[in-house]
Amino acid sequence: MSDAPEFESIVSRLPCQVHWGDCDPAGIIFYPTYFRWIDAACWTLFESAGYGPKWMRENHMAMPLVSAQCDFMAPAAQGDRCEVRSRIGRFGGRSFVVEHDIVRADGTVLAKAKETRVWGRYENGPGTPMKGTAIPEDLKNRFRAR
Amino acid sequence: MSDAPEFESIVSRLPCQVHWGDCDPAGIIFYPTYFRWIDAACWTLFESAGYGPKWMRENHMAMPLVSAQCDFMAPAAQGDRCEVRSRIGRFGGRSFVVEHDIVRADGTVLAKAKETRVWGRYENGPGTPMKGTAIPEDLKNRFRAR
Amino acid sequence: MSDAPEFESIVSRLPCQVHWGDCDPAGIIFYPTYFRWIDAACWTLFESAGYGPKWMRENHMAMPLVSAQCDFMAPAAQGDRCEVRSRIGRFGGRSFVVEHDIVRADGTVLAKAKETRVWGRYENGPGTPMKGTAIPEDLKNRFRAR
Amino acid sequence: MSDAPEFESIVSRLPCQVHWGDCDPAGIIFYPTYFRWIDAACWTLFESAGYGPKWMRENHMAMPLVSAQCDFMAPAAQGDRCEVRSRIGRFGGRSFVVEHDIVRADGTVLAKAKETRVWGRYENGPGTPMKGTAIPEDLKNRFRAR
Repeated sequence: MSDAPEFESIVSRLPCQVHWGDCDPAGIIFYPTYFRWIDAACWTLFESAGYGPKWMRENHMAMPLVSAQCDFMAPAAQGDRCEVRSRIGRFGGRSFVVEHDIVRADGTVLAKAKETRVWGRYENGPGTPMKGTAIPEDLKNRFRAR
Repeated sequence: MSDAPEFESIVSRLPCQVHWGDCDPAGIIFYPTYFRWIDAACWTLFESAGYGPKWMRENHMAMPLVSAQCDFMAPAAQGDRCEVRSRIGRFGGRSFVVEHDIVRADGTVLAKAKETRVWGRYENGPGTPMKGTAIPEDLKNRFRAR
Repeated sequence: MSDAPEFESIVSRLPCQVHWGDCDPAGIIFYPTYFRWIDAACWTLFESAGYGPKWMRENHMAMPLVSAQCDFMAPAAQGDRCEVRSRIGRFGGRSFVVEHDIVRADGTVLAKAKETRVWGRYENGPGTPMKGTAIPEDLKNRFRAR
Repeated sequence: MSDAPEFESIVSRLPCQVHWGDCDPAGIIFYPTYFRWIDAACWTLFESAGYGPKWMRENHMAMPLVSAQCDFMAPAAQGDRCEVRSRIGRFGGRSFVVEHDIVRADGTVLAKAKETRVWGRYENGPGTPMKGTAIPEDLKNRFRAR
């Protein structure tokens, strides 16, 4: 019985497929592939809220990582079609958590991942060192499901 | 004041370098690169205990993942020479934890990671489904630092 | 005026997108990404002719490379949506050439690539050494556009 | 009997190893890995001539690709230790060719590759569009073996 209503995030969906070269000699997905996918999925989530790559670039913003983790629940093999479903888990002052479910077309949850990132501004233009900056309320609002 | 002495693991070292293609438009390492490195470093750790790729292949063993996580502590840029220092964090019955420190040549700890893996046997030869199997005491002993 | 009619191949299409981690510090696609894409696209081409990953696996077939090349014609940046259009360039006795055009959604041809591959059978099951084998006429026929 | 003496290039050496995740379900190296290696090896070659990543970055220079090709001569498996031996094949006005031999520790030549690149300057600082620029004679001279 909480009186602090949870933040309910929009959910973005990035389709992806397990390719031959994403698999290792065990014949299943090489796990860093999931991290490649969820990084891409985080950008898709932000794009769906109006912060696409072009906006990010022109506004000198990026989303450097604090930490990343993934639980692997079922193996995936070449040809499997999947979807990364991503949402904001939590907004902090300058950092935020993105949660990802990686789901196969047959509904099997293959993996569940979490990234903690900073809302960072390049101090001297793209490619230069970044500094965490306060996440604007307007940005947060754009991620609200309702 | 514990009377259960900690397992003290050997430590393996995998040298690596941040290449141009390991970096992203922010000019720093693209984080899934670290997971590629620590996966390779886990194999190096096992090789240093006598379980090299050839032994693993011929004995139909692999090390599927349960989970992986990484804390990113300092950015790395193209050209940085690093080392992944890996050790067994804990042996369970069929699973084990590998801990990795990613350290730059100047001593800076760039990242700290942890993988939980299963000691798995291919049921019908390499590339077929795997099943967790009890970790032999002999194997554990080979990872003891003393 | 040739009386040997050219082989006219079916064309498969693999959609793909340039993600943040596919780009390098120059802010454009890191070129080995194209080779990852065209390898996946070759599998898509074979799948569209009835030789999907499952069939390949169960029949102990693979497509090892003899050579690969790519001409890069225009840079691609994060977010670009592309398509790899693949066709058989030529069938030999045991080898074949796959040609790929990588085209951006705006119609720009980003790259043109060519792979020479062998139709190879694993001698002792998946993951064991491969040996080139004669390409059946039936297989060739399935790739004919008409 | 040519009276146009060939340019004799210095040769740089980049050590590398085939890791688990560099291999595919066939149990051998996934071929785009070679292109990742030779891209890194090209940077190593330039560093050995005095044009390291830091110099390149500070002088707003990069080496965008015109084309890349690779002939695959022998398969490589997990654990194989290799070396990429790189040299300038030819200097043009604004472009140049880099030749790479990928050699395993036992002396087997695994692959031979060639990249054609442009000597490019970022027009508005790192990460902005590049423009080919004349290769200075001084630069060429630093790559002469004698």
